[in-house]
Amino acid sequence: MIKVGVVGGTGYTGVELLRLLAAHGDVEVVAITSRAEAGVKVADHFPSLRGHYDLAFTDPVAAPLKGCDCVFFATPNGVAMSQARMLLDAGSRVVDFSADFRLKDRVTWEKWYKVSHASPELFSEAVYGLPEINRERIRKARLVANPGCYATAVQLALLPLVETDHVDHAHLVADGKSGVSGAGRKAEVDLLFAEASDNFKAYAVKGHRHHPEIVESLTSLEGASGRHIGLTFVPHLVPMVRGILATIYARITSEADFQAIFERRYAKEPFVDVLPAGSLPETRWVRGTNQCSIALHRPFDGDTLVVLAVEDNLVKGAAGQAVQNMNLMFGLPEVRGLEQIAVVP
Amino acid sequence: MIKVGVVGGTGYTGVELLRLLAAHGDVEVVAITSRAEAGVKVADHFPSLRGHYDLAFTDPVAAPLKGCDCVFFATPNGVAMSQARMLLDAGSRVVDFSADFRLKDRVTWEKWYKVSHASPELFSEAVYGLPEINRERIRKARLVANPGCYATAVQLALLPLVETDHVDHAHLVADGKSGVSGAGRKAEVDLLFAEASDNFKAYAVKGHRHHPEIVESLTSLEGASGRHIGLTFVPHLVPMVRGILATIYARITSEADFQAIFERRYAKEPFVDVLPAGSLPETRWVRGTNQCSIALHRPFDGDTLVVLAVEDNLVKGAAGQAVQNMNLMFGLPEVRGLEQIAVVP
Amino acid sequence: MIKVGVVGGTGYTGVELLRLLAAHGDVEVVAITSRAEAGVKVADHFPSLRGHYDLAFTDPVAAPLKGCDCVFFATPNGVAMSQARMLLDAGSRVVDFSADFRLKDRVTWEKWYKVSHASPELFSEAVYGLPEINRERIRKARLVANPGCYATAVQLALLPLVETDHVDHAHLVADGKSGVSGAGRKAEVDLLFAEASDNFKAYAVKGHRHHPEIVESLTSLEGASGRHIGLTFVPHLVPMVRGILATIYARITSEADFQAIFERRYAKEPFVDVLPAGSLPETRWVRGTNQCSIALHRPFDGDTLVVLAVEDNLVKGAAGQAVQNMNLMFGLPEVRGLEQIAVVP
Amino acid sequence: MIKVGVVGGTGYTGVELLRLLAAHGDVEVVAITSRAEAGVKVADHFPSLRGHYDLAFTDPVAAPLKGCDCVFFATPNGVAMSQARMLLDAGSRVVDFSADFRLKDRVTWEKWYKVSHASPELFSEAVYGLPEINRERIRKARLVANPGCYATAVQLALLPLVETDHVDHAHLVADGKSGVSGAGRKAEVDLLFAEASDNFKAYAVKGHRHHPEIVESLTSLEGASGRHIGLTFVPHLVPMVRGILATIYARITSEADFQAIFERRYAKEPFVDVLPAGSLPETRWVRGTNQCSIALHRPFDGDTLVVLAVEDNLVKGAAGQAVQNMNLMFGLPEVRGLEQIAVVP
Repeated sequence: MIKVGVVGGTGYTGVELLRLLAAHGDVEVVAITSRAEAGVKVADHFPSLRGHYDLAFTDPVAAPLKGCDCVFFATPNGVAMSQARMLLDAGSRVVDFSADFRLKDRVTWEKWYKVSHASPELFSEAVYGLPEINRERIRKARLVANPGCYATAVQLALLPLVETDHVDHAHLVADGKSGVSGAGRKAEVDLLFAEASDNFKAYAVKGHRHHPEIVESLTSLEGASGRHIGLTFVPHLVPMVRGILATIYARITSEADFQAIFERRYAKEPFVDVLPAGSLPETRWVRGTNQCSIALHRPFDGDTLVVLAVEDNLVKGAAGQAVQNMNLMFGLPEVRGLEQIAVVP
Repeated sequence: MIKVGVVGGTGYTGVELLRLLAAHGDVEVVAITSRAEAGVKVADHFPSLRGHYDLAFTDPVAAPLKGCDCVFFATPNGVAMSQARMLLDAGSRVVDFSADFRLKDRVTWEKWYKVSHASPELFSEAVYGLPEINRERIRKARLVANPGCYATAVQLALLPLVETDHVDHAHLVADGKSGVSGAGRKAEVDLLFAEASDNFKAYAVKGHRHHPEIVESLTSLEGASGRHIGLTFVPHLVPMVRGILATIYARITSEADFQAIFERRYAKEPFVDVLPAGSLPETRWVRGTNQCSIALHRPFDGDTLVVLAVEDNLVKGAAGQAVQNMNLMFGLPEVRGLEQIAVVP
Repeated sequence: MIKVGVVGGTGYTGVELLRLLAAHGDVEVVAITSRAEAGVKVADHFPSLRGHYDLAFTDPVAAPLKGCDCVFFATPNGVAMSQARMLLDAGSRVVDFSADFRLKDRVTWEKWYKVSHASPELFSEAVYGLPEINRERIRKARLVANPGCYATAVQLALLPLVETDHVDHAHLVADGKSGVSGAGRKAEVDLLFAEASDNFKAYAVKGHRHHPEIVESLTSLEGASGRHIGLTFVPHLVPMVRGILATIYARITSEADFQAIFERRYAKEPFVDVLPAGSLPETRWVRGTNQCSIALHRPFDGDTLVVLAVEDNLVKGAAGQAVQNMNLMFGLPEVRGLEQIAVVP
Repeated sequence: MIKVGVVGGTGYTGVELLRLLAAHGDVEVVAITSRAEAGVKVADHFPSLRGHYDLAFTDPVAAPLKGCDCVFFATPNGVAMSQARMLLDAGSRVVDFSADFRLKDRVTWEKWYKVSHASPELFSEAVYGLPEINRERIRKARLVANPGCYATAVQLALLPLVETDHVDHAHLVADGKSGVSGAGRKAEVDLLFAEASDNFKAYAVKGHRHHPEIVESLTSLEGASGRHIGLTFVPHLVPMVRGILATIYARITSEADFQAIFERRYAKEPFVDVLPAGSLPETRWVRGTNQCSIALHRPFDGDTLVVLAVEDNLVKGAAGQAVQNMNLMFGLPEVRGLEQIAVVP
């Protein structure tokens, strides 16, 4: 059994991680930390976990994290960067849900996150945890930076296009739509039911933090290295709880069988499902699962390729991908604990 | 492996049953019938099942149902009553989701369902499939009538009160609230998103079909037999997909420790969770699970007892309870395949 | 033109009041106060008001409220009680949306609101602003306590029953259901979209603050004075933005034509609509309007009467009723500015 | 008073038109037709109209439409094309909500609508009812083709770009998102609450019927005539009742002050509101109103212009624009009856 610690278990990615770990089979959760809820039973805080967890939240200072084989940080940006070093030195492996180790370029990181990074020396060691790109490196990693939710869907939709030369890489458009849980369990007026329900809007059009993450990751792809990736990314808030749909628009510059390219690229991927050409994926089809489903369209056989990708932002976009990374890091079957079927309707 | 057939697999209880059976472990689904979708792959009809079912829907006439150990009818009222006899004769056991065998009194049945019953001779054999009342009879049953969704929640909230003598049994009030999936996957204007969203209403106040079912079942309880049960039941439609909450009002006629009565009654029940006194259960806590959670309140220490009960109408209120019944009928552990954790948020 | 000031214009009842006043015709809004948003254009804060208000929010200290004919307090409890005296002395009339002046009994008030009341001497002068009870007193009032949202719907559903002697007044049940806007524009986790959507729960079962308000008001009705009113009130949170539905259960003690009693009682009321017997009112039918629609049912012709009442919690339950009260106080036609048609769907 | 007839008053655009007409002031609705509901009081069918309409639905055959000054067709495609000729001959003017007269090219029309057109001779007379393009022609028109809902939002977002030469007209992208009411009041499984709620998907990616309408209209603009317009349009279904948001992506080919271009273009338009640069319009800001609000963004000062446009699909996208057209056709102030304020929250 892998001894697991969870830092920051009171948010949406935290409770989703706990749901997945409870049914995993090869892990034992030994500590779940929360400063605010220290002493409170986890199952009292999240009654959906009644009967599955007997633990109480521990104050982070007192938590036996150093004895853990694997520590997940389901925390806001800025927490993992201060604690990762200590845990790695103690022999733990770390999977960080936050953005602390997602970029390789410190200047870019500090520009976007507006603080000084506490452990920039770990940038080179940290592995960007998108298994579809970095599977082998993740297997050997001590520190994995779990990708952002939009970043996962957008990259999976773009990867086969960026690895080949049939579309204009300099003018990609990703129109993103996310359910409200993507914003986290934060008491903010904009996220209230009475504000977000029966409503639709774009946000962060000036620049969303997943933008540099996507661009850096795609630019540094083996074989695509050095290429210029130009991406316009506009996220929108959908009045639903979970789910991301990314609509990608790419200008075709040379003919190719895009369906075949996508199918080939993802033929062996357990969690990327290339649907029959012309499919119209729905976010609920993957709700609660670690799947990303992708469909290709070419309207009027013109020169614009449309790629649709759906995922559950809290699973493949967060906690599920983190478990997938843990499975890789500890030599377990990659799909272990991740075979849920979507709850539909 | 238990060979299972599913008659009518294209509705909401059908797809939920298929979700549960896919993860069950002791069953093999050999036929899923649908007249309208015959020949269509089940996973094309319900893309949430991609990778879990390779079967196509079979026309009911051609389906190898007679070779099944267990046949589930996830059909509208009126189907099972015509086919159950034949399947029982062929050695199958039958779990019927519809109302065809829920009542014992033919006159009452025909008054409420407005057709002549096709197999009234099976009324005496059919067992009402609420395990919390009829567990031992279900174990031996060939034909189980799976209870209605409201009927399950309301009965579980009322049982400990009806089995004891501390409230006025003649004037019980059950104010029910259900998500829209309870109405089924029917193309009706009233159920459209643009009608049911951002809206709330009562319906069937004149008389809901679960009313006679609840009253007959509670009246015929061992120990309560012959008692008069007077129940006012008003259902309401909630703009959510899944979930039922029943709010019960009972006049206290003699003092008792109601919390203790409920805890004792359900101490050994795997799927009824009596919450600490004063809890406020939410439907999402049990979404996708077979749990019914119950909480007791006594406002201002007055003479009115308030009981709150939540369940997922498609699981404990339908497909999950059906699997629970199948487990009992085939001597499997009662919880097999029913240990899902709620997807929250 | 009536010069109007609005204290606390940044919440949901505030923006709703501004919507109604903009289309009123006989009022001029001269000041809208907000400490937090002072200096910000009202139409920048609430873009739905673009083109309708040129004013900016004023700091409460600097606002020219004393020159106003009518001041609305769309503030949390505790604000109006400190400022009403000063405004009344300056010749303004005051309509308070909060609970500060809703009760007559100071001990009860302080028990429920848990602070010492700042102006208990105004209790006797304040008129409870339910026109269907107190129309003549409101016309002459300087200080009107606008009723709570649940309190309005529940009282309108109960009034004809409490004024007559055909049901058991000591054991009334009101099962209330409200949209999320009823909780106000407060950044609280419980009110987040990802918490409240696709979910249903009861709350405040131990005792909701509208309970003493309803009981005191009904107990002090002319003709009903001194009667004991026993009420069990359980509110529930519906995943919709606006709307309240109250389901009332009353035990019939002597026969009567309840439909006729209700129709007679409300025959001349412009904002109470007694629907044909057996109707099933929906909250959306009155969304955005000042109407309360009521329907009566008597299931199975038994001894339990069911009354259904719907209103928009922000209109008849708050801002609309406040405008109705203002119209009465200033001798305007009672319906002025309140003839909107519901936006359906 | 203008005598108005409404053909097909039982759908969503019908009830919205009736809401607007009831408050208009210069019209008298003399007939509302429905074959299915003939004889039923309009206010019984749409209880939100209680107190505002005393009329019953009339069978279309018997309706006194020929005596009307203005007849609105709130009908599916294929109805107006058969009846318009007769009404025009009788002296009525006609505003058609359907697509029957939206295109000028019969071959294109028949290709998209897959039937033979009944009155192609009226194509040349029919005026496309987007006042921001065709105001003067609408004033003189006898037959106005009211634009589609997406077509209105997308064209208003594109017009200033197509009338000038600063972006690549051949590669425009419009990512559309609509509330469910846009699909009409049709009993279809896909539109059920339990299907569309808590879900998000694209649809009609192969080709939506508003696509040819947008392209033909923009291509035939005065000054832009003959230009090639290349548009990729992907519509998506949002789990909300009303509202459209269109996100436009255009490649900038020469520098310009786009904010100034838009502000100048729409300076005198009563129903197009160009928001300050960088605004993030929300659909609810214009819910229930005839406004279209537009905001411009240029992420990272790059070469992609992003235009966001919101409207209420049932108002500016249907019934409101129809009333605006009627106002123009009858010489009334253009804004008459269209000054509602959005109901927020």
